[in-house]
Amino acid sequence: MNLKPLGDRVILKVLEAEEKTQSGIFLPDNAKEKPQQGKVLAVGPGKHNDKGELIPVNVKVGDTVIFAKYAGTEVKYQGEEYLIVKESDLLAVVG
Amino acid sequence: MNLKPLGDRVILKVLEAEEKTQSGIFLPDNAKEKPQQGKVLAVGPGKHNDKGELIPVNVKVGDTVIFAKYAGTEVKYQGEEYLIVKESDLLAVVG
Amino acid sequence: MNLKPLGDRVILKVLEAEEKTQSGIFLPDNAKEKPQQGKVLAVGPGKHNDKGELIPVNVKVGDTVIFAKYAGTEVKYQGEEYLIVKESDLLAVVG
Amino acid sequence: MNLKPLGDRVILKVLEAEEKTQSGIFLPDNAKEKPQQGKVLAVGPGKHNDKGELIPVNVKVGDTVIFAKYAGTEVKYQGEEYLIVKESDLLAVVG
Amino acid sequence: MNLKPLGDRVILKVLEAEEKTQSGIFLPDNAKEKPQQGKVLAVGPGKHNDKGELIPVNVKVGDTVIFAKYAGTEVKYQGEEYLIVKESDLLAVVG
Amino acid sequence: MNLKPLGDRVILKVLEAEEKTQSGIFLPDNAKEKPQQGKVLAVGPGKHNDKGELIPVNVKVGDTVIFAKYAGTEVKYQGEEYLIVKESDLLAVVG
Amino acid sequence: MNLKPLGDRVILKVLEAEEKTQSGIFLPDNAKEKPQQGKVLAVGPGKHNDKGELIPVNVKVGDTVIFAKYAGTEVKYQGEEYLIVKESDLLAVVG
Repeated sequence: MNLKPLGDRVILKVLEAEEKTQSGIFLPDNAKEKPQQGKVLAVGPGKHNDKGELIPVNVKVGDTVIFAKYAGTEVKYQGEEYLIVKESDLLAVVG
Repeated sequence: MNLKPLGDRVILKVLEAEEKTQSGIFLPDNAKEKPQQGKVLAVGPGKHNDKGELIPVNVKVGDTVIFAKYAGTEVKYQGEEYLIVKESDLLAVVG
Repeated sequence: MNLKPLGDRVILKVLEAEEKTQSGIFLPDNAKEKPQQGKVLAVGPGKHNDKGELIPVNVKVGDTVIFAKYAGTEVKYQGEEYLIVKESDLLAVVG
Repeated sequence: MNLKPLGDRVILKVLEAEEKTQSGIFLPDNAKEKPQQGKVLAVGPGKHNDKGELIPVNVKVGDTVIFAKYAGTEVKYQGEEYLIVKESDLLAVVG
Repeated sequence: MNLKPLGDRVILKVLEAEEKTQSGIFLPDNAKEKPQQGKVLAVGPGKHNDKGELIPVNVKVGDTVIFAKYAGTEVKYQGEEYLIVKESDLLAVVG
Repeated sequence: MNLKPLGDRVILKVLEAEEKTQSGIFLPDNAKEKPQQGKVLAVGPGKHNDKGELIPVNVKVGDTVIFAKYAGTEVKYQGEEYLIVKESDLLAVVG
Repeated sequence: MNLKPLGDRVILKVLEAEEKTQSGIFLPDNAKEKPQQGKVLAVGPGKHNDKGELIPVNVKVGDTVIFAKYAGTEVKYQGEEYLIVKESDLLAVVG
């Protein structure tokens, strides 16, 4: 990946929400829940605190994360879509 | 549970509001009060203060907590629904 | 009381507003003023300041307090209603 | 007065706006300007700054003060109405 | 003047906007621009910074100042109207 | 110029937007873009930081600057119009 | 380039969004996505932190960057259009 996030941002590839309901019925696009899981593709260097120390980001490339609804900025790069979010919008790590 | 909350967040399983009124009448779904109690399933490492010290979260796995209305983010993971909330949205511990 | 407030919160039992006007006429429910007095039932451990010191709450169990209109969160626990408010929403102590 | 304000709050008895215009005509209630003067009845202990020092309030019982429009919370106690305002909403001392 | 401003506030007597246009035509009241100049009548002691030091106000009694539109609170005292503004709403000193 | 800006403010004479399009057509008033360039006429002493140090303003009298749209306060003084803006609303220096 | 950005701002030349869809169809203007990539033309000196230290900007002239939607201020200078954005609105560096 040749996009390098700045500050405490990470770049995610969003994982699509499950397309089947639990009873096995396929859902049309507008009935699917907004996906909230992503794979971490790149991690920024971190953010400086008030004392001037660099605070690194607490997730790493390869992590699967759950992020806040409507967080971040969607960007399109070389035909692919990514989501760039701040660490504070990451809620949990899966696994 | 294999979801690890980040920062000062906790993962809750929301406990359903009581479904009977005090006079013993069952309530239809839309008349039930929004539930505000949850069981703590996982606790994040805490948040750093301005001095760079990690402040741990003041609740532990297994606690039953009361949380602020409309707090947190609902997430669905492997068919189950959870609520991820920040420690600051927890109001009290039961018991 | 087996609800333990977190941080600088207190749990109050709200005292009903006086139901008679000064001329002695009973008021219907919707003409009563919103009550703003409560009895303190439980007090949280306090809040940490920027230096990491725990600042205790300045009221104690048994105090009657006046609180800001619309402050806090109403919770129902074992059939009883309580109000959980932050210390900053307490305006004065009575007595 | 047996109401003790908390933090940097003061309790005021609001002084009614002058009821006559300069030409001596009495004004009906809804034409009177909202009063902005009050007599200080009680003063809180003050507020802690970031260094943990208690900063006392700069007015004293008996002062007549001018306060910001719509500041504070009106409370009714034992049939009397008071206004509880933060020190930051006090604009000037009279006299 | 026997009104003493609190904190970093100053009391101004607002100077009326010029009532003639440059071509010498008198303007009706609603065509006049809102005045933004005032004479400083009283100056508060200043405001404490985060280190607990008192920061005095940078204007003095007698200064003519330009203030931000819609800044401050109009007060009426003994039949006269004044404007009480914070130092941060003063934009420039004239002269 | 006998207006002295306070704090980290500067006084600008706004430079009119170019009145011709690139193809040489004169534009009516309401088609002109809102001007965003100004000449610095006066510079305030600066602003104090949290440590009590005075931080001087980074532009000087005579500079041509680009400022944020809708920034600052328009003032009229002795028949002339000026714009008073904070340093933080200055985007770039020309030249 | 003779525009010098102030503080932690950078001046960008916005790169137009790709004008063809992946299937090779040219898009009319209003169907194109709002461009979010720019070339860095000039970089400000940086911003001072609470301790008075200058924090330099983490991108350099010549970098291609991705910026937040609707960030910054468009300015027109000598017939050319530029975007001036704060460092905090830069999301990632390309390459």
